[in-house]
Amino acid sequence: MKIKIIVTLKNGVLDPQGKAIQQTLNGMGFDNIEEVRQGKYFDVEINEKDEKKAKIKADEMCKKLLANLVIEDYKII
Amino acid sequence: MKIKIIVTLKNGVLDPQGKAIQQTLNGMGFDNIEEVRQGKYFDVEINEKDEKKAKIKADEMCKKLLANLVIEDYKII
Repeated sequence: MKIKIIVTLKNGVLDPQGKAIQQTLNGMGFDNIEEVRQGKYFDVEINEKDEKKAKIKADEMCKKLLANLVIEDYKII
Repeated sequence: MKIKIIVTLKNGVLDPQGKAIQQTLNGMGFDNIEEVRQGKYFDVEINEKDEKKAKIKADEMCKKLLANLVIEDYKII
């Protein structure tokens, strides 16, 4: 089954890439953008039919590789 | 209001970064991972109370800057 994972910077962690996107959008005429924060998205195809087991695996992957828990949060959807 | 945008590579477009993550996961002992594809995620804070209008703005941003429609798809959630 397919598991979707979103990894985002924690609140308070500077996101210069998001800031650059925001400034570019402002420069393009999108003037009501207050903040942009960029994160990562992963589509993981796991050979496992049980959704609960697949999500436990995904959680383990996030902790061990996909997210840096010092500065990032993750969400499995 | 906050709009979340996911940008993913279209099916068929090579994703070497996703492949590298998959191989790393396999090497770490996660042996039932069949495919990993990486995408981008954006949290956009728009100064607009009407959800419909905010989503129309977000759609325009994706088309003009956030996604490369030749190789990427986007989803506003």
